[in-house]
Amino acid sequence: MAKLLIINGPNLNLLGQRETKIYGHTSLDELNQALAHLCLDNNHQLESYQSNSESSIIDTIHLAKDKIDFIIINPAAYTHTSIAIRDALLGVSIPFIEVHLSNTAAREAFRKISYLSDIALGTISGFGTHSYYLALDAAFNYLKSAKN
Amino acid sequence: MAKLLIINGPNLNLLGQRETKIYGHTSLDELNQALAHLCLDNNHQLESYQSNSESSIIDTIHLAKDKIDFIIINPAAYTHTSIAIRDALLGVSIPFIEVHLSNTAAREAFRKISYLSDIALGTISGFGTHSYYLALDAAFNYLKSAKN
Amino acid sequence: MAKLLIINGPNLNLLGQRETKIYGHTSLDELNQALAHLCLDNNHQLESYQSNSESSIIDTIHLAKDKIDFIIINPAAYTHTSIAIRDALLGVSIPFIEVHLSNTAAREAFRKISYLSDIALGTISGFGTHSYYLALDAAFNYLKSAKN
Amino acid sequence: MAKLLIINGPNLNLLGQRETKIYGHTSLDELNQALAHLCLDNNHQLESYQSNSESSIIDTIHLAKDKIDFIIINPAAYTHTSIAIRDALLGVSIPFIEVHLSNTAAREAFRKISYLSDIALGTISGFGTHSYYLALDAAFNYLKSAKN
Amino acid sequence: MAKLLIINGPNLNLLGQRETKIYGHTSLDELNQALAHLCLDNNHQLESYQSNSESSIIDTIHLAKDKIDFIIINPAAYTHTSIAIRDALLGVSIPFIEVHLSNTAAREAFRKISYLSDIALGTISGFGTHSYYLALDAAFNYLKSAKN
Amino acid sequence: MAKLLIINGPNLNLLGQRETKIYGHTSLDELNQALAHLCLDNNHQLESYQSNSESSIIDTIHLAKDKIDFIIINPAAYTHTSIAIRDALLGVSIPFIEVHLSNTAAREAFRKISYLSDIALGTISGFGTHSYYLALDAAFNYLKSAKN
Amino acid sequence: MAKLLIINGPNLNLLGQRETKIYGHTSLDELNQALAHLCLDNNHQLESYQSNSESSIIDTIHLAKDKIDFIIINPAAYTHTSIAIRDALLGVSIPFIEVHLSNTAAREAFRKISYLSDIALGTISGFGTHSYYLALDAAFNYLKSAKN
Amino acid sequence: MAKLLIINGPNLNLLGQRETKIYGHTSLDELNQALAHLCLDNNHQLESYQSNSESSIIDTIHLAKDKIDFIIINPAAYTHTSIAIRDALLGVSIPFIEVHLSNTAAREAFRKISYLSDIALGTISGFGTHSYYLALDAAFNYLKSAKN
Amino acid sequence: MAKLLIINGPNLNLLGQRETKIYGHTSLDELNQALAHLCLDNNHQLESYQSNSESSIIDTIHLAKDKIDFIIINPAAYTHTSIAIRDALLGVSIPFIEVHLSNTAAREAFRKISYLSDIALGTISGFGTHSYYLALDAAFNYLKSAKN
Amino acid sequence: MAKLLIINGPNLNLLGQRETKIYGHTSLDELNQALAHLCLDNNHQLESYQSNSESSIIDTIHLAKDKIDFIIINPAAYTHTSIAIRDALLGVSIPFIEVHLSNTAAREAFRKISYLSDIALGTISGFGTHSYYLALDAAFNYLKSAKN
Amino acid sequence: MAKLLIINGPNLNLLGQRETKIYGHTSLDELNQALAHLCLDNNHQLESYQSNSESSIIDTIHLAKDKIDFIIINPAAYTHTSIAIRDALLGVSIPFIEVHLSNTAAREAFRKISYLSDIALGTISGFGTHSYYLALDAAFNYLKSAKN
Amino acid sequence: MAKLLIINGPNLNLLGQRETKIYGHTSLDELNQALAHLCLDNNHQLESYQSNSESSIIDTIHLAKDKIDFIIINPAAYTHTSIAIRDALLGVSIPFIEVHLSNTAAREAFRKISYLSDIALGTISGFGTHSYYLALDAAFNYLKSAKN
Repeated sequence: MAKLLIINGPNLNLLGQRETKIYGHTSLDELNQALAHLCLDNNHQLESYQSNSESSIIDTIHLAKDKIDFIIINPAAYTHTSIAIRDALLGVSIPFIEVHLSNTAAREAFRKISYLSDIALGTISGFGTHSYYLALDAAFNYLKSAKN
Repeated sequence: MAKLLIINGPNLNLLGQRETKIYGHTSLDELNQALAHLCLDNNHQLESYQSNSESSIIDTIHLAKDKIDFIIINPAAYTHTSIAIRDALLGVSIPFIEVHLSNTAAREAFRKISYLSDIALGTISGFGTHSYYLALDAAFNYLKSAKN
Repeated sequence: MAKLLIINGPNLNLLGQRETKIYGHTSLDELNQALAHLCLDNNHQLESYQSNSESSIIDTIHLAKDKIDFIIINPAAYTHTSIAIRDALLGVSIPFIEVHLSNTAAREAFRKISYLSDIALGTISGFGTHSYYLALDAAFNYLKSAKN
Repeated sequence: MAKLLIINGPNLNLLGQRETKIYGHTSLDELNQALAHLCLDNNHQLESYQSNSESSIIDTIHLAKDKIDFIIINPAAYTHTSIAIRDALLGVSIPFIEVHLSNTAAREAFRKISYLSDIALGTISGFGTHSYYLALDAAFNYLKSAKN
Repeated sequence: MAKLLIINGPNLNLLGQRETKIYGHTSLDELNQALAHLCLDNNHQLESYQSNSESSIIDTIHLAKDKIDFIIINPAAYTHTSIAIRDALLGVSIPFIEVHLSNTAAREAFRKISYLSDIALGTISGFGTHSYYLALDAAFNYLKSAKN
Repeated sequence: MAKLLIINGPNLNLLGQRETKIYGHTSLDELNQALAHLCLDNNHQLESYQSNSESSIIDTIHLAKDKIDFIIINPAAYTHTSIAIRDALLGVSIPFIEVHLSNTAAREAFRKISYLSDIALGTISGFGTHSYYLALDAAFNYLKSAKN
Repeated sequence: MAKLLIINGPNLNLLGQRETKIYGHTSLDELNQALAHLCLDNNHQLESYQSNSESSIIDTIHLAKDKIDFIIINPAAYTHTSIAIRDALLGVSIPFIEVHLSNTAAREAFRKISYLSDIALGTISGFGTHSYYLALDAAFNYLKSAKN
Repeated sequence: MAKLLIINGPNLNLLGQRETKIYGHTSLDELNQALAHLCLDNNHQLESYQSNSESSIIDTIHLAKDKIDFIIINPAAYTHTSIAIRDALLGVSIPFIEVHLSNTAAREAFRKISYLSDIALGTISGFGTHSYYLALDAAFNYLKSAKN
Repeated sequence: MAKLLIINGPNLNLLGQRETKIYGHTSLDELNQALAHLCLDNNHQLESYQSNSESSIIDTIHLAKDKIDFIIINPAAYTHTSIAIRDALLGVSIPFIEVHLSNTAAREAFRKISYLSDIALGTISGFGTHSYYLALDAAFNYLKSAKN
Repeated sequence: MAKLLIINGPNLNLLGQRETKIYGHTSLDELNQALAHLCLDNNHQLESYQSNSESSIIDTIHLAKDKIDFIIINPAAYTHTSIAIRDALLGVSIPFIEVHLSNTAAREAFRKISYLSDIALGTISGFGTHSYYLALDAAFNYLKSAKN
Repeated sequence: MAKLLIINGPNLNLLGQRETKIYGHTSLDELNQALAHLCLDNNHQLESYQSNSESSIIDTIHLAKDKIDFIIINPAAYTHTSIAIRDALLGVSIPFIEVHLSNTAAREAFRKISYLSDIALGTISGFGTHSYYLALDAAFNYLKSAKN
Repeated sequence: MAKLLIINGPNLNLLGQRETKIYGHTSLDELNQALAHLCLDNNHQLESYQSNSESSIIDTIHLAKDKIDFIIINPAAYTHTSIAIRDALLGVSIPFIEVHLSNTAAREAFRKISYLSDIALGTISGFGTHSYYLALDAAFNYLKSAKN
């Protein structure tokens, strides 16, 4: 049994309230609960955290050290601007996956830069809230093969 | 009658304390009060907010949703680095104006990039504290024509 | 009492004839008259000039020397291509404001370059014809404080 | 019931023969069979195709028109060089996902450019052969919601 | 029957006087007459205009509004430097073709930039004076299909 | 009497099947037949070739040596990526024209690069299938003047 | 006697806990104490502050105004992304030194940009925790010569 | 005996009226007269022309064809923006020297580009009005050696 | 005794037929035979392959696995565009030398990029067909020292 | 006891003769003597060398091999242009520190490139002649910990 | 009476021996003598120096301090690569002119960069050996006006 | 019989002393002797020269004029920085080959620029000391064909 942590970056607290045609009416809380259930079904435990604050995300990553086995992070806008979150993830050496709701490749040019991708296990982007389910699946698979 | 919100970004709490030869001795509080009076004279209501914190500014923008009709924002240094504030403004869909005390075009090259200008109604820069008065004027004009 | 000059660059003679949904049906002449009235109300005098010709604009700036106290210029397309107008404005040393009808930051990439912004007092863009009223307001304010 | 097509680009025929420590000993054939079984379990049908030839991949995409409901493509090296495959995918208008075995963000700089990402539904990269399972999952999810 | 206008930019008045080995001895006047005859044969009417002046070209484009159905323009050196001519063509919304005598792709690097190509119907370059005949043919074809 | 060859690059076999509102319902075969007739009317002979394969296009260019007098090529996506086709055209030294259905200048930035334009006689782009007719006209004109 | 302030940016709270082979087992607290002792030995007073929060660092710099004579700052990841910290240091006009544990020149390309170096007295990087001792030495020397 | 032409570009009509500390009080007329005298002393004839208009400069260059043996041009701001003047000088094939009052290398970055330098005989910049005397000297020397 | 393979890329089948003044009249077949003889003289065996097809070259590299000890490749135009051939060579891990007939450094700018050089043992360019002899010499030397 | 070498690059022989207000009146000889005394006090031996010649600096580095334990180098202008000095330092594998009198980050853009920083232990810049004392301190510290 | 120094950089010792059709048969010695005579005629004294060595040129500039009133330098290839010579000229603060035999603007792209131009009084390029005479003339003029 | 000259640039005097695992224990002297013997066996004469000094290399190239028939140069670090050596080689017009021990394409990005490659006959890099033998072979071949 492993402990997983989902971190959601700035503006993701608005999930389910805006652009509902694309992303549906599921709120972040509802999504987190559904994901937690899925983890329990797979004998894993899930914590979730959202913040608009770069430093709170860093603090959360620090606290995860020696407590959390795997991180799934949707850094949102901080993907493109935060070297500090990169350093935090490097500092705690917890394997992680980078997740995006939208297909960032189809948006503004400044969203092509990610300070996390090259140190992530992998990246999943463009599948709406389903991106998180895919990331959980990838995490389970990683944890299984890492155990062997 | 509309509700307006003025958001001032990092270091603007120092207004009236530094470079007083250029910007005068008016503090941010005094400025905000004067602007609030002007709003009242035009039958509008003004709230003002200053923070050095990117996430507090984002939180404030989120809270403005469905409560505030118009935002005037001087993002200061975050103009050039914060995609998260851009996303927050996109998220709440409140019309806004970008304001600068100084003429950013005459400063360092890295101040030429703005993550907000292309989604703002317009930009006013270079007129010291008078920039805010001009922005209020533009806001009143916008609100009037939007009402028609 | 001061003398102001408004210079409008190429294609602005079409004002009121195209894209009337955005900019309204006011022609450039009507706009100039309204702005002139506003100046008179503030005890200032306004001249206005429009040309599609870069050199005529330069000539007009030269003639303004020692006669005009303040220039408001909407250089339109010449904003991005004319170093000669920049040199003319530097040559006569008259304080000036750069004005744009549209929000140039939201248009083609080549409109991000301005050869005037860094030598202007300030820039106002994105407010349609109201941009000129804001510029006049800024000019009045400048002239007042310069007198003191 | 939908028809899916998995397209694998150049050098992926070597799967299971090189770098087996990272990607395991599963050959491309074995992988394709396993993925086909998974599709059957979900009442979908899967075809798979591999080629080192850019034009054969284009031909295969053309043939998919009106026959295939969903494409999963690992364009390998052609990700970064083939505008023709992009045009083929645009031409047939079949929804598709871009998949990579390795985390391309952690490799050479020239692998940062993708001619497919911005027209894909989404991208999954870095999870070895598990990337394909995630892509199938995403495809199933897409097909389900598209049906509704 | 439609009205067409051919606009020739700077230095094209020298046609037939320089580099006659490449472009022949036909002067611009002779070329214009021949093109006008061809138009008459097709029941169209052709006006032609040449100027070395950017603003005169802009004025001519403005005058064409509501009078001219189609423009063929060889902007010569202004191709690469005039945003004002672009704005004029956008302002009058007359369909136009960009024409060049020489193959600009085989010349100096700064001739690769065109401020007109992306808003033109199409571009024809490299065929000497025959480029104009091709442009007329394309214009006739466009006018025919636009009528239907 | 001359022999001409029209080469069409990747995805052009889909002509008449997609985006028919823009390009009409004429298939590539029908177009080729119509162009061949036009050639016969002018006492020339036309062969046509389409392939999605870069190497097949190169082979075809090699075979054209000493047999074909003029090439009209629409390299489609290979315009922007194939130095090998450039080298093939340089190798056989047959005069050629580059043709495009769409106005490539109005599309993605990566379509601004052409590896053929600077070694072509000229380029015609943006006139749909009529671009080929214009190219034939230009070819006839070239062949006539080359004979003299 | 002068008052000095050491500011440590994001992730530096992990000092002594990670990469201990390179930086040793000294924690940030122990380091700060040792540096404070050294200051006392030189008749100076040292305060120290660490935060993962950009805004808290800005607040701390503001509070230092008129209280602190010299700042030593290791901005860590904020070196490369925070114009707001730059503005804060410019705002309080306290002389400062930029310090780095690692040799940033030997790391990722994005660490070559510093928003602080050009307004610092000087920079010291690459000497692990000894970098701080060198910075203190430089500060003492500066304060001595400034007093004269 | 040869005929020389001095062309002065935009804003140079202000010579002697601005920045007189650097360039002295000599007006452009006085300078032209002095240069004309120097030509006469060397048995050459000098015409001079100044315009703020790009097209008037082009016209003047065209008129110089077959009448003028040598051109000295100070293109001022048009140095950096006018490809049309370049084309005019190429069109008339008259040898010319590029002259600048100021040392353009020590000014704004956009003044580093010259569209004339690479087709000029040579360039002289930075010596105030004396630059013209040096250019005349160079012209005399060129004309002498060209005669032999 | 080792097995060597020479791979020649697109357009090299034209060797001996074009630009014979520079490269002589030796055809690719004759060259391959001469190189094969030289290999036999050194107790090595040589196979040779030419194709205009990127995928055929990739297939040939795949087939070389475990059969060929050393590859000499003249990738011609694919040098600058084929990441797929790079991946193929990385996939089979056979030591190889990159060879060019011409001095690519003296040609078009886009020939400066090679996707193979950094993974090759070394590069030889500019010596016409003699480049292959030098490469064979280098290969023999490498095989000798690798055996020891 | 260790042997240290201080190398000073071009123009540093002028120390104490120019810009004395900033750097004081200490000559390079006096500085070297003071630094040598400090070394002796720490039981180390210091040699010093200055040259305006790139090759003499290289020769000196070569001679240091197996004789010198630590190098402190102020490469001055060669910082930005000499790959040969980089190669020399790599060739002898002696640990070294890069030192600068001035804050190079606050000077011309071309001083941002250093060919030495990424292979140095660390860099100290901006503290005038005190930079050398700091470097010695860092060297002593390094030598002490390397001995353990 | 002033003392002038002419410094010639690398390869200029070959003057008169190569490309004599362009630069004539005058050797550097003969040129220097002629220039020295011209100086004497104007009551000035001229020394000349040539070296292929960057450091010898720097040494010569250092020695010029307080002895030489004016420098004319043709830095040849060092124009584009030597920051050290720039620093030497800045160090001695002697006014100087940059001279080139050829028109560097018409040569390779890497010759567009000069590390000296922006700190020179002015630049003269493209007039062969006559460039030096023009530079002397400019120097005399400068010395005359500086005396006043 | 021809005279050949081998020039070795900076740091190559260390050959055989460093990185001996890669390049072996052969010193530069031993290498030069072996190469000289090979030349004698082919009835040619070889001189060799090494220097760390850019100017000494230039002087040596100058002296080679009219005495040396062929140059083989390993410019080492000067490959990437010395335009002066380029000019020297252009000045004496002796055919030359550029040689490198290591595969420069696989090293730092700044080693991709060569100021010599485009004017060399050809380049050989990556074969250790064997690169010189290959260069001699290429030189013999060139001299033979040049004689015919």
